[in-house]
Amino acid sequence: MIREKYARLAYHRFPRTTAQYLGHRRLDTTPLEEGLPDFHPPPLPEEDPYCLENAPPNLGYLVRMQGGILYVYDNKKMLERQEPHSLPYPDLETYTVDMSHILALITDGPTKTYCHRRLNFLESKFSLHEMLNEMSEFKELKSNPHRDFYNVRKVDTHIHAAACMNQKHLLRFIKHTYQTEPDRTVAEKRGRKITLRQVFDSLHMDPYDLTVDSLDVHAGRQTFHRFDKFNSKYNPVGASELRDLYLKTENYLGGEYFARMVKEVAWELEESKYQYSEPRLSIYGRSPEEWPNLARWFIQHKVYSPNMRWIIQVPRIYDIFRLKKLLPSFGKMLENIFLPLFEATINPQDHRELHLFLKYVTGFDSVDDESKHSDHMFSDKSPSPDVWTSEQNPPYSYYLYYMYANIMVLNNLRRERGLSTFLFRPHCGEAGSITHLVSAFLTADNISHGLLLKKSPVLQYLYYLAQIPIAMSPLSNNSLFLEYSKNPLREFLHKGLHVSLSTDDPMQFHYTKEALMEEYAIAAQVWKLSTCDLCEIARNSVLQSGLSHQEKQKFLGQNYYKEGPEGNDIRKTNVAQIRMAFRYETLCNELSFLSDAMKSEEITALTN
Amino acid sequence: MIREKYARLAYHRFPRTTAQYLGHRRLDTTPLEEGLPDFHPPPLPEEDPYCLENAPPNLGYLVRMQGGILYVYDNKKMLERQEPHSLPYPDLETYTVDMSHILALITDGPTKTYCHRRLNFLESKFSLHEMLNEMSEFKELKSNPHRDFYNVRKVDTHIHAAACMNQKHLLRFIKHTYQTEPDRTVAEKRGRKITLRQVFDSLHMDPYDLTVDSLDVHAGRQTFHRFDKFNSKYNPVGASELRDLYLKTENYLGGEYFARMVKEVAWELEESKYQYSEPRLSIYGRSPEEWPNLARWFIQHKVYSPNMRWIIQVPRIYDIFRLKKLLPSFGKMLENIFLPLFEATINPQDHRELHLFLKYVTGFDSVDDESKHSDHMFSDKSPSPDVWTSEQNPPYSYYLYYMYANIMVLNNLRRERGLSTFLFRPHCGEAGSITHLVSAFLTADNISHGLLLKKSPVLQYLYYLAQIPIAMSPLSNNSLFLEYSKNPLREFLHKGLHVSLSTDDPMQFHYTKEALMEEYAIAAQVWKLSTCDLCEIARNSVLQSGLSHQEKQKFLGQNYYKEGPEGNDIRKTNVAQIRMAFRYETLCNELSFLSDAMKSEEITALTN
Repeated sequence: MIREKYARLAYHRFPRTTAQYLGHRRLDTTPLEEGLPDFHPPPLPEEDPYCLENAPPNLGYLVRMQGGILYVYDNKKMLERQEPHSLPYPDLETYTVDMSHILALITDGPTKTYCHRRLNFLESKFSLHEMLNEMSEFKELKSNPHRDFYNVRKVDTHIHAAACMNQKHLLRFIKHTYQTEPDRTVAEKRGRKITLRQVFDSLHMDPYDLTVDSLDVHAGRQTFHRFDKFNSKYNPVGASELRDLYLKTENYLGGEYFARMVKEVAWELEESKYQYSEPRLSIYGRSPEEWPNLARWFIQHKVYSPNMRWIIQVPRIYDIFRLKKLLPSFGKMLENIFLPLFEATINPQDHRELHLFLKYVTGFDSVDDESKHSDHMFSDKSPSPDVWTSEQNPPYSYYLYYMYANIMVLNNLRRERGLSTFLFRPHCGEAGSITHLVSAFLTADNISHGLLLKKSPVLQYLYYLAQIPIAMSPLSNNSLFLEYSKNPLREFLHKGLHVSLSTDDPMQFHYTKEALMEEYAIAAQVWKLSTCDLCEIARNSVLQSGLSHQEKQKFLGQNYYKEGPEGNDIRKTNVAQIRMAFRYETLCNELSFLSDAMKSEEITALTN
Repeated sequence: MIREKYARLAYHRFPRTTAQYLGHRRLDTTPLEEGLPDFHPPPLPEEDPYCLENAPPNLGYLVRMQGGILYVYDNKKMLERQEPHSLPYPDLETYTVDMSHILALITDGPTKTYCHRRLNFLESKFSLHEMLNEMSEFKELKSNPHRDFYNVRKVDTHIHAAACMNQKHLLRFIKHTYQTEPDRTVAEKRGRKITLRQVFDSLHMDPYDLTVDSLDVHAGRQTFHRFDKFNSKYNPVGASELRDLYLKTENYLGGEYFARMVKEVAWELEESKYQYSEPRLSIYGRSPEEWPNLARWFIQHKVYSPNMRWIIQVPRIYDIFRLKKLLPSFGKMLENIFLPLFEATINPQDHRELHLFLKYVTGFDSVDDESKHSDHMFSDKSPSPDVWTSEQNPPYSYYLYYMYANIMVLNNLRRERGLSTFLFRPHCGEAGSITHLVSAFLTADNISHGLLLKKSPVLQYLYYLAQIPIAMSPLSNNSLFLEYSKNPLREFLHKGLHVSLSTDDPMQFHYTKEALMEEYAIAAQVWKLSTCDLCEIARNSVLQSGLSHQEKQKFLGQNYYKEGPEGNDIRKTNVAQIRMAFRYETLCNELSFLSDAMKSEEITALTN
């Protein structure tokens, strides 16, 4: 019920089945479609995806940050009276109470035992299902015409744009630019213009000789448990100049090279027809100009692709900016990230480019090395963002709360105007403290990684009951935090958690041209996944993604948003109905156990 | 020394380093190049690869089979006098004595302990090498210009032609033929011509609806330890009609469909530029016509590709043919397999097509389920092939001896004429008895699989000392005989055995378009192989392959045939010299241990 509250407030998703079993509510009769997040359908083939016309009018609202959260006022008078627009505003105290409630739950002995046993039961039940029904499932798939694993839709639900091409692709691109335009000015240093040739001369290298070895962007044995080394792999040949030139949206060329590479990746997806991707682009929060610049990059280089939808990742590196004196407080960072979005939402007329770009943005991510420890304990006594001026980095939960809070207000404001809303999809549970998964349980629509659910049966069971989508990247984990064979993906899938497969960073982890297929192939081979397993994961990935309602209907079936087998159209998904029925029955069974227990407790309480 | 004898007789390869250490011989001064097998260099770009001119003249020799081995006679008189041409003819008794010698060796307690300890030592030594030199190796590779894992040559050393396309490719091809030529006559049954449409009608299916699921050629959990089920996966949709039509060289269309698909695969290899393949085509030995038919198929459909070299696989299914009364004796089967080759060698003028095709054939394979048990114990008392008329299948060692014996005579005859020779490259050690690996130790130039070397330290050590190439296919094993994580490839590589990576059957085991890259990628990911490891495997694969001397010089360096670091050209292979030096030193160290022990034994024997 706690998660449901947070989800509803932010237009995140919560399964109605779970809500109804646990809420004792009368049948919820609002149409299921209404609970769905709002994403813009892609422009029609005849429409111009970069059309800046028809931006809605200026509402004239005013926005002010207070305590790290943006408040909207209808007009100057209301601002003076401190009476904000009637949007739901999140409350820090409630949040910390809710957090501690769940923290108490996950450490409670009997609850741990109960969840542990139920999870074991779920796993054994699936094994049994597999033994009994494997052949029937396969028979169902065999008699399903024209649809197989290759032509079901798959979304790469977690991929960083700056590493979305594979290493060979980047190498080829660098060589190509050097061959075709060595004398082009590509940078400016202290007023001096620098050509591409000069860049490479200063690095003492000839791109002709460059190899994937000397490029050195691939993770290897050296990166295991070394996020720092991994991060520096983003620098081709170890040179940050090349990262700036080739992998950034803001540079002397206006991010042209990066845009061209991303478009090549997009083109390959369009060619493949059935593969989609949700690349994550960075907004750092150093300056409010980042947003208009990013939108301009997108429009100027025509980066739109029907097979891509965008996510904005915010690195948790306030401490670095503060140390460099780029930011006075954490509050300023939040303002830089969110204020431009509020302004573009209130007055799209004057922020046409950003307004347009936001149509293709479907969510936010919070990224960094989770294994970094923070000394600060987040509580309602923590300093508010506007007074967080120390050089210390706020902890994970603090970041998540303030990201969520602003997204929630923004979503409500946008919903009011009929604009698209955003999902919060942070990295969570890749490493570090288990409390991260508690924060995300409240604040996130879905998460990336989730490895550490392995360590907490209660949280794992909660993620199961709430069917929180988890984008897993076992090849990435294999190079960074957890060996492939120990990855819990197979186990999570068996138990019925809502997992999808994603690549994270093809540049650093993959060998073949088709990174997502490589990811699926290796999982299939190592864990001996059946076709039905693979198609279930692919279906999960589409559900988890920011593709629009219309696209999901096209890719998964008219009723995709319904829970259980009636939401599955095997002709589109190639997932056996036997499997869907098993999943739904199993979930209902777990839920009814819980609701029966709650009822009997209530009766005991009443009779005593 | 036993293996060396067999190798020299058949123009197989034996490392000179090992020969010199163990043979106490004075320095062998014959140029190293002379010991190399003879393969035709590929035709020059301006040459016609199908040119039937310039076949050498008829020598007029006569050939007769005696005791399962083909004997060559200079003329009729010599035949009457039973005086065969002066070629080395193998001797069954020597073979069985040698076999039993090695069998005694591998069960000898102290030898087992010794080998086991040396192998452990080799593995630990490599770990140490890795810890100390990993970064130096990588540094060497990074400073190696223009060469990386992607552009070193790789050969798929073990792949069955009938499964060389992936499942999606086969599916697409079937749909394409149906769309473009449904009314073409593709078969004849009891005099009635059958069109493609009728074939599918009789199977009650519309190819439009066909999927990889209904095609059902992919191995899955059901095939583990079930070679029978695996074999039936060669039938698309379970229909042998479709196998005949699409995957055979002999049928109503003269194997046109199969040829077209193989050429599509070849074209992809040519596009990739750095990948080569050695597909295995079947000769069954039912009739002597199989050879000319196969050669005609090759020439008529222009199947030649510079990126492919061919191997002939002979299935060990005499018992099936005998049961169907297609063959009177095992001797007849051998005759059907080898006589046409002798005739084409003696009189190329009258067998121009076969003569031409043999230029592109570089070896023989013996294939079938090794786990099938044979009751017969092979010895010099075993019935000779001409009197082997029972319905029982001869055992593995029997097959191998007679294949080897005939290849050996054939190679000597061909060498005399300046024609190319063949390598014997059987499947061995995939399953079944350990004695298979003993037979192959004598008779094979190199083997496929070799998994069971895991179980015999003595044999494993012998395979190491003799540096016998092993084409391993861990993904194939994963579906059939051994889980990926238990595959010994990594361990073999570490110890210094001469291993390469191969796909076996992309149609059945692989998911992506690039099966060989998938194989390398998965090995790299699961076992965390370094770039140097991968490039060492790739180099091994070229050495193992039937590519010609000229090509190997081009792909690996001028001196590729020299042992140790001087045989390595890092600019071509991207294998660090540190690695090569380590391998060579380690091998020499093992060998000098043995030769010292032998010397001291001799001295003891002399002084006593």
